[in-house]
Order: sequence, then C-alpha cells, then structure tokens
Amino acid sequence: MADPELDAVVAALRASPRPADPEGRRARMDAIGARYPLPADIRVEPVAAGGVPAEWTSAPGADPAAAILFLHGGGYMAGSLASHRHVAAQAAQEAGVRTLALAYRLSPEHPFPAALDDALAGYRFLRASGIAAERIALAGESAGGGLALAAAMALRAAGEALPACLWLSSPWVDLALTGASLRTKAAVDPLLQTPYLAELAAAYRGQTDARDPRLSPLYADLSGLPPTLIQVGSSEVLLDDAVRIAGAAGAADVPVTLRIWPQMIHAWHLFHPQLAAGRAALTEAGRFVRGWIAPA
Amino acid sequence: MADPELDAVVAALRASPRPADPEGRRARMDAIGARYPLPADIRVEPVAAGGVPAEWTSAPGADPAAAILFLHGGGYMAGSLASHRHVAAQAAQEAGVRTLALAYRLSPEHPFPAALDDALAGYRFLRASGIAAERIALAGESAGGGLALAAAMALRAAGEALPACLWLSSPWVDLALTGASLRTKAAVDPLLQTPYLAELAAAYRGQTDARDPRLSPLYADLSGLPPTLIQVGSSEVLLDDAVRIAGAAGAADVPVTLRIWPQMIHAWHLFHPQLAAGRAALTEAGRFVRGWIAPA
Repeated sequence: MADPELDAVVAALRASPRPADPEGRRARMDAIGARYPLPADIRVEPVAAGGVPAEWTSAPGADPAAAILFLHGGGYMAGSLASHRHVAAQAAQEAGVRTLALAYRLSPEHPFPAALDDALAGYRFLRASGIAAERIALAGESAGGGLALAAAMALRAAGEALPACLWLSSPWVDLALTGASLRTKAAVDPLLQTPYLAELAAAYRGQTDARDPRLSPLYADLSGLPPTLIQVGSSEVLLDDAVRIAGAAGAADVPVTLRIWPQMIHAWHLFHPQLAAGRAALTEAGRFVRGWIAPA
Repeated sequence: MADPELDAVVAALRASPRPADPEGRRARMDAIGARYPLPADIRVEPVAAGGVPAEWTSAPGADPAAAILFLHGGGYMAGSLASHRHVAAQAAQEAGVRTLALAYRLSPEHPFPAALDDALAGYRFLRASGIAAERIALAGESAGGGLALAAAMALRAAGEALPACLWLSSPWVDLALTGASLRTKAAVDPLLQTPYLAELAAAYRGQTDARDPRLSPLYADLSGLPPTLIQVGSSEVLLDDAVRIAGAAGAADVPVTLRIWPQMIHAWHLFHPQLAAGRAALTEAGRFVRGWIAPA
C-alpha cells in the first residue's frame, strides 16, 4: 500500500546519505530534529542528571510526579537532545508527564560501559528527585532500546527498584547481528544495513564480547522486567531483533506487547510531524505509559 | 508470582488426565464447558451455517450487523459448541456483537480439509446472511487459530473479501512441531506435550505434508491478511508458534499485535469464569474486535 508521507520521508533520507565520520553522522541526525520545531506550548529545561547532560520536556498540565526517561537512538555513536527533542516532547504530551531526555556519552570516544553508566545515573537522578520508581517509564529507541533493557537488568542486579514499564521502539538488542531480517529486509530498509551496524557494534563494544548481555540483551536472562511495549516497523533490518526480544522476554514471564507496523522504517517516530503512523505510534506508547505509571 | 486462581485450574486439569480415545477426549473438553454455566442474559440460538452445525450467542444490545466467527480449540479432534459456549458468550459480550460458534468436523473421522471447508462455509454463511466482511472478526483458539489463518488465506486465494480482523488465542500454526518452546516449556505446560501434538497432527493431516501452508500457516505467504491480535501464555509449549506467526505475519506487512501473558497456560480463556487473566484477555480481545469492526 502506497504511503505518500512515508515515500517523502524515505526520499529525503536517500537524498542525504550518511557520512562516514562520527561528527558528520551526528550532524545528520541533529538536522532531522532541526526540521521539526516544537509546538509553542512545550517547555524545555536543561538539567544535569547525575552529571549527565539532560533535558526536561513537558506540555502544559504534565504530572510532575511521574516521568519518562528517554534514551535516544543513533547506534551509540550519534543522536542527541537536539535530534530527538520533538520525539521527547510528543511522548511527554501523549503520556501526560515530563520526559527526561538523556545525552549519554557516545562512542567511539566513549565505548561501553559509558552509555550504560550514564543511563543508570539518569535513572538514579530521577528517583533522587523524588519520582517513585513505579511512576517512571524507561524508554529507548534503537540503540537506546537496547540500552534501556541493559539498564533495567543492571538495576535488577543491583537490587534497585525497577521502573513501572519499558517502552522500546525499533530496539537494537543483538550486537552479534544474527537476525534473519538483516538479510530478508535489507532491500526495503532505507536506513540500516549490516556493515554499518557491524561498525557501530565494534565502536561501542570495544573488547567486550558482542553477546555480552549488557551489550546485547537478547542473550540476557530477562526475568523480572516490568511490562514492556515493543514497537517495530516491518521494513526494518532490525525487525527480528524486536520479534526475538519479545519472545525472549515473554518466555521469561515478562508481560509483553509487540506491535509490528506495516511498511514502517527504523525509528519512524522520528518523522512523526510528517508521518501519521509516527504520531499513532507515539499515541499508543503514551497510552501504554499512562496505564502503567498511573498514581496508586 | 503465585496465582491461586491459576493453581486451582492446573490442579483440576491434573486431576482429570486426558483419555487416549477421541470420544473420551471430547467428553473431557465438554466437561470444562459444563462447569461454567452461562450468565442468565445470554441468548443462544442453534443454526445450520451453510450446512455446518453452529450457534449464535449474544448478550443484550448486541449489534446484529456484525459478528465474531469463532473456531474452537481441541487439536482438530475435540472441542465443540458445548465446550466453548461460555467463551463464545463472553467474547460476544466484550465485543458487543453476536458470536457464531462453529462445530466444524473433527478428526480422525474427518481429516483435512473437512475442518477448513466447514470454516469457509461458516464464513460464507455469515456474508450470505447480510453481514459485511468488514464487520466480521475471524477468531480461533489453538487448532482453531491455525484454522482461522488457513481460512483467511483460502478466502484471499479465492478472491473473496477478507474479514476485518483476526483474533487468535494460543494458535497452533506449525503441525511440523519445530518450535523450541516444545522443549523449553514442556516442564511448565500442564495441557500439551509433543507426543500428543504429533498424534493430533497425524490424525488431522492424513497424507498431506505437515508443512503444507493450509495445515501450518507458519509456512504460508501471509501477506494481505487483516489486522491480527495474537494472545499466548508464557507457560505454553506453543509459545513459539505464537511468536513465530507474529513475526512472519508482521514481516509480510500484516498489522500485528502480539500479547504474551505471564504464567498463563494454553487456551486460558477457557477458564475465565475462575481466572481473572482469562477475563482480561477476553476484554482485550473484545476491545480489539470492536476497534476493527466498528460501523463505517
């Protein structure tokens, strides 16, 4: 089924090929955010979250006692507060809470476990700010989705209270790159291909094994995780990452909802101002988050 | 997490082992239905649906212009209008429409394609009765879930209008029995084990290959199917049937929602009068069905 909105997004992506250097990649992602100005009533406040640069984003009427901790995508190498500010804002609006978006450290300058340490610092900052764990949704897109899972498992291992729910969009959970969709969806994915993912994985993991569960939650014991929403597009080479992590988490008795969106591309929420399916996915995520972080 | 309701269900199942003969198995399933009397306001009307014994079930206020076509479970060998009447009734109530439950022919007396022929006859009866395809939800549990998928694909191949949506609970979609959860969940599944499933598969397929897509939709081209809700419990040997069909349908650009319910056993909706998670699953299914068969 033709989707002129999606066609326009893909055409714009193809017209702006990804540079080979980290700084060029970061600038390209930030340019996506720059295309989408925020609604006038969105409030943005910079904050140092346990030492990590971060930003509160909220719409009028946001519940101050609950929050989404948002971990952007970009393969652990790119992505920033600027690239995803419009996504953080729309998620906040849909969930009726504030979003704390985190500028965790990036590779290759800062390989694993820098990003994980920063994600944990952000979560602990939220709790130290007086937000109860049961009123926090931990969210991540792409690499940020894998990072959210890794953070939740680290919290569990440390005996700390887990967030109320996880919301993962297009999560990357297997840095060993074993999913069949890396091949079967290569022809339809305009954003990701195996050589690029392999380069990102190498830059992030350094000397750590690609199947280390702290890097690749697909290989982790996922039991004890909170209710988890996983959203993925059918035109993604990472489709099987989403399907497999849904199966693995479900098998570990995690309450799982997997939603596969026809024709959607990797991290299509990024394009939501021009893509109805992106807005619908954020509405769905907001409803899910609201349902789990409601006041007791 | 302990669930005393679920423990009671499992204890009752273990106290009543499954007989080896088809008639004994059918009586055992019918006895489940007999344990759960219908609410007083449920109306039940027998009907011959294109020659197939069937039953309308409805609650007060049901929309007469829409319907759920319900295909019960029982491994193609057992299950009946009696065994699942309370499930059909609750689904009708939750969706606000009538359910047409179908007593399709069973194996070993009537192997493939008898059940598929009957499912198609039931669907065509609904449309001939004046119910538009876009106001029909095609639903199936366990073997009935595989049958619902096979029927939808047969309709697509015949160029007939597809139903508005599919609702599959604990679907059995791989008669070749290749799912890893047949092993990994064997210890926690109180209802199904591989030898029993292999016997059922042999009785239904006769001389047809176990991977024939009309028997095992996992091996089918699923493109063009309508929005599909798949519900499965985490304590099922058929968990991977649900996860794999979700992945395959999603990869074929079908809008898919997969919901994995912690600790739930195969076809737990059957026990909903004594199991809150069964009622919650039927509420979720009813909401899904309502969303897709709403009047234009």
